[in-house]
Amino acid sequence: MNKLKRNERIAAMVKILSDYPNKLFTLNYFTERFDAAKSTISEDIVVVKQSMNKLGLGQVKTVAGATGGVKYVPQTSQYQNKKVLDEVCEKLIEKNRILPGGFLYMMDVLFYPAIIQKIGEIFASQFTDKKLDYVVTVETRGIPLAIMTAKALNLPLVILRINSEVTEGSVVSTSYTSATTGTIRRLSLARRAIKPGSKVVIIDDFMRGGGTAKGMIDMMQEFESDVEGIGVLVATKIPEQKMVDDYIPLLIFDEENECDGKINLYPNSQLVQNEKNSENLKI
Amino acid sequence: MNKLKRNERIAAMVKILSDYPNKLFTLNYFTERFDAAKSTISEDIVVVKQSMNKLGLGQVKTVAGATGGVKYVPQTSQYQNKKVLDEVCEKLIEKNRILPGGFLYMMDVLFYPAIIQKIGEIFASQFTDKKLDYVVTVETRGIPLAIMTAKALNLPLVILRINSEVTEGSVVSTSYTSATTGTIRRLSLARRAIKPGSKVVIIDDFMRGGGTAKGMIDMMQEFESDVEGIGVLVATKIPEQKMVDDYIPLLIFDEENECDGKINLYPNSQLVQNEKNSENLKI
Repeated sequence: MNKLKRNERIAAMVKILSDYPNKLFTLNYFTERFDAAKSTISEDIVVVKQSMNKLGLGQVKTVAGATGGVKYVPQTSQYQNKKVLDEVCEKLIEKNRILPGGFLYMMDVLFYPAIIQKIGEIFASQFTDKKLDYVVTVETRGIPLAIMTAKALNLPLVILRINSEVTEGSVVSTSYTSATTGTIRRLSLARRAIKPGSKVVIIDDFMRGGGTAKGMIDMMQEFESDVEGIGVLVATKIPEQKMVDDYIPLLIFDEENECDGKINLYPNSQLVQNEKNSENLKI
Repeated sequence: MNKLKRNERIAAMVKILSDYPNKLFTLNYFTERFDAAKSTISEDIVVVKQSMNKLGLGQVKTVAGATGGVKYVPQTSQYQNKKVLDEVCEKLIEKNRILPGGFLYMMDVLFYPAIIQKIGEIFASQFTDKKLDYVVTVETRGIPLAIMTAKALNLPLVILRINSEVTEGSVVSTSYTSATTGTIRRLSLARRAIKPGSKVVIIDDFMRGGGTAKGMIDMMQEFESDVEGIGVLVATKIPEQKMVDDYIPLLIFDEENECDGKINLYPNSQLVQNEKNSENLKI
């Protein structure tokens, strides 16, 4: 192969790094793949860093030392969060979304890759400083969201099953009460799915009373594992007292205060900001 | 913002294009975001194209005309397929994978983002020339794989539910016989999930008799929609006659011919190639 030019190396480097967020690539990986000197690759990395920074596309971090290298870390600003969450809200407050039983139809949003990829990066940005082993969710609706979060954090996903036949060998089961449906349900997980002593974050699409999240925390205790954080796309405003304490909702659904039959849904004010930062000029 | 340098524009362009495969971006989008002339952006695109090409990282395609623009199309070579599928096989033939009942434990592979992202791109490469509206799968295990395929194709995902309570308004249900479990199951899907007259591909993790796939095709008929292709990660060699005709398995699982208790699993020979092409020198 002809030697790559700097421009071409940079293009390829961005592609490789951003395809695998939070995965550490050694400088050797790039010197070999691009057939270039270490000093050349180091200079390339500086350019890539600057570009991502200037455009608010996330961070490129270098880790020094023998086990070092370079990795891409998705990081969303509060202004970017606002843009994404406003867009999601706008879709979700369309008419005809309230289903019989008071449920909110969210399938088209939850299953649309371009949207949930952005939401996954917002979740990942909240948990990026924690040392984690797994992202945990419960079937079915929250899975696409959870896998996108897992992708952004470079972690394996674990899916708890509800009331379903599990064909994965030895299984651990617990019960919980769903405030949403008012029924007792059974959560199951294959014994080999999580190593004891792990640290996890829980990702789900919807929280009303927090019963499901509580059930998931209990399940993690069965695996001697710690829940380091909980992220939900939508939490209802009422009841304010949920069965779990620390959770990060991206959107708040205020069912009581609907005006003119319009769904009252808005971004979590702690995650968003109206003004662009001066460093974050064009996104 | 200071004007971006060429290197920086190229880095940002690759990030934006590859984050949203198969999404068409107008040249205006880039001229505005980068504050650069159209001719400058066109030159940048040529560099990005060449780089992706030289390194086998997929294709960047320009679409001419008023509605034109540029998009990134994931495209895996047969040599790349071989590398990915060999890696997956290697993981799946580890010891202790056969579960009671003859099931193959695949969770860790199916739920690991970095792996399924690559598999999703292989699936997408098989269907990239078809005009499609949705990727369809069935809960639970195949969902991460299907959403990664949907991401690579820039399509929404549709998830059929099995035997489960569906809280999404008016629902269509059909029944099918699962050859794997020997039971009759009920598939359900919200009426509003698919527009009549759509074209879909089906993605699933495992096929034995093809009963589930057949059930999914029947369901699509209820929505007056056509199945344009079926992709499964693993198909068993036996029975050779499945209940569906056209399907693309990535891996073949030959349960009958295990040697020394070793799982006999290998890539579909039609998708892989041992030799690198001369154009595809370094990947």
